[in-house]
Amino acid sequence: MAIIECVPNVSEGRRPEVVRAIVDGVAATPGVHVLDWSSDASHNRTVITLAGDAGPLQAAVLTLFHLSLQAIDLRHHQGEHPRMGAVDVVPFVPIEGVTMADCAQLARETGEAVASRFGVPVFLYEEAASAASRRNLEDIRRGEFEGLALKMRQSEWQPDFGPAAPHPSGGGSAIGARMPLIAYNINLATDRLDVARKIAAAVRFSSGGLRFVKAMGIALEDRGIVQVSMNLTNFEKTPIPRVFELVMREAARYGVRVLESEIVGLVPSAALVAAAQWYLQLDAFTGDQVLEHRLRTAGPHV
Amino acid sequence: MAIIECVPNVSEGRRPEVVRAIVDGVAATPGVHVLDWSSDASHNRTVITLAGDAGPLQAAVLTLFHLSLQAIDLRHHQGEHPRMGAVDVVPFVPIEGVTMADCAQLARETGEAVASRFGVPVFLYEEAASAASRRNLEDIRRGEFEGLALKMRQSEWQPDFGPAAPHPSGGGSAIGARMPLIAYNINLATDRLDVARKIAAAVRFSSGGLRFVKAMGIALEDRGIVQVSMNLTNFEKTPIPRVFELVMREAARYGVRVLESEIVGLVPSAALVAAAQWYLQLDAFTGDQVLEHRLRTAGPHV
Repeated sequence: MAIIECVPNVSEGRRPEVVRAIVDGVAATPGVHVLDWSSDASHNRTVITLAGDAGPLQAAVLTLFHLSLQAIDLRHHQGEHPRMGAVDVVPFVPIEGVTMADCAQLARETGEAVASRFGVPVFLYEEAASAASRRNLEDIRRGEFEGLALKMRQSEWQPDFGPAAPHPSGGGSAIGARMPLIAYNINLATDRLDVARKIAAAVRFSSGGLRFVKAMGIALEDRGIVQVSMNLTNFEKTPIPRVFELVMREAARYGVRVLESEIVGLVPSAALVAAAQWYLQLDAFTGDQVLEHRLRTAGPHV
Repeated sequence: MAIIECVPNVSEGRRPEVVRAIVDGVAATPGVHVLDWSSDASHNRTVITLAGDAGPLQAAVLTLFHLSLQAIDLRHHQGEHPRMGAVDVVPFVPIEGVTMADCAQLARETGEAVASRFGVPVFLYEEAASAASRRNLEDIRRGEFEGLALKMRQSEWQPDFGPAAPHPSGGGSAIGARMPLIAYNINLATDRLDVARKIAAAVRFSSGGLRFVKAMGIALEDRGIVQVSMNLTNFEKTPIPRVFELVMREAARYGVRVLESEIVGLVPSAALVAAAQWYLQLDAFTGDQVLEHRLRTAGPHV
């Protein structure tokens, strides 16, 4: 069985009964596991983490659209987080026994089904994008719900599936495929925010650092320390140990030591196995040697 | 669902058709997965790695005894590996969602069933042992099949279950519970066998090293290098990074560097996750954050 993760972002984080109904509806889909979900009232947004095989996940996403479009009207939606749709973003993420190409295909099939069933325009993004210019979610969402009708009059912002104008209350949705995102923070044994900010600037892609790192320096005021707060967007190409070692080296340059690091939320086993491999110099190791992996992939017989 | 590993050692490694029939029989048990098996002709022995929950594993072990006792007669068995029974050793190993106490209890129940159904005397060992003096498998097996009848006339070598004398053709069996065993080797960038032997002596328990490490120094003659070849018998109490770092430090004392390390066969995910945690200083991380772990333990709802 393949394991695909799916992390829909829904534009509702203030009405618990609405969120609960959506989560319940999705959880009732056979073969789908709800690994996590959390609502943010200031963002007015809920992020749900699902896992399962392709067919069940697609069914769950269709249920998610059905329930969300019934309950959410973006014409009356306020929140700090950028959004353009009632179901704003739906990424599919390969975890085990499945390729990125499989997940991109699943995004296309799901997008087509969403558009034809609900009349919502769908924009494919990241690894499922139909052109390089629309890979980036921020580019697709720029202008948000309020600007979407005008944006869609431009020929370059026609949707991949669905009508040429937004759904009246539900806007538009971005559906795509991407690598697992790891929320990874490193705490420094100092209260010098300038050091955290300099290190963040040194390691992040946007200012010359590692290709798949987003980073910022922040103060943890209650603890009197600072943190390099990061998102790792491709742990295969920019592995956690390389980030940790580079941050440690940059910190040493300022006479600062690393106190600890933390992973926020879920992480695929493969990212930690790769970290152990790197440090232990396990050159010939393969994921097939992990007992639980063998158990999931073996039939009764080897 | 709990994941328990079971690694029966059977005294047959030269007749493939016999081995195949035993593996097939075990694999046919519902709920049991054969993760691996391998026969060694010079040892005249086969090691099978099973995984499943308690009930299915006990059923598989009873099938294993049934088939092995039919096909194997220790009165005609020759091989380099010490053995005292047709089914020589059966350890149960906790992997996930199950305690060592659960595995010890499973060993006792299985031992009792084996003794009553097949008339084989059963000795409980390691974490299932009924006395400190019979925890050690080597102590139980000393004298082997040929000396077992005489040994069992001593009051301290009465079995935990079954008759006071060996099964005529099947001898006696050790059934127990233990931690996962990790076969872990570190290759050194030198051909100096004395260095590998000194490091092995430094890190192994028997000569003053780490509590749960067995080690020896060997030459890899085809590669012109040497290896510290180890068994790690409790990765929770003596974790892999501590062993690796100590070997690297001891090697540096002789001006030698570590080339690579290797894990032979299967390793539980938790051992590698713990290694990543150690190196990345992930102080607050819990196994529940590993996506696949969450998937196995979550119901449809979180």
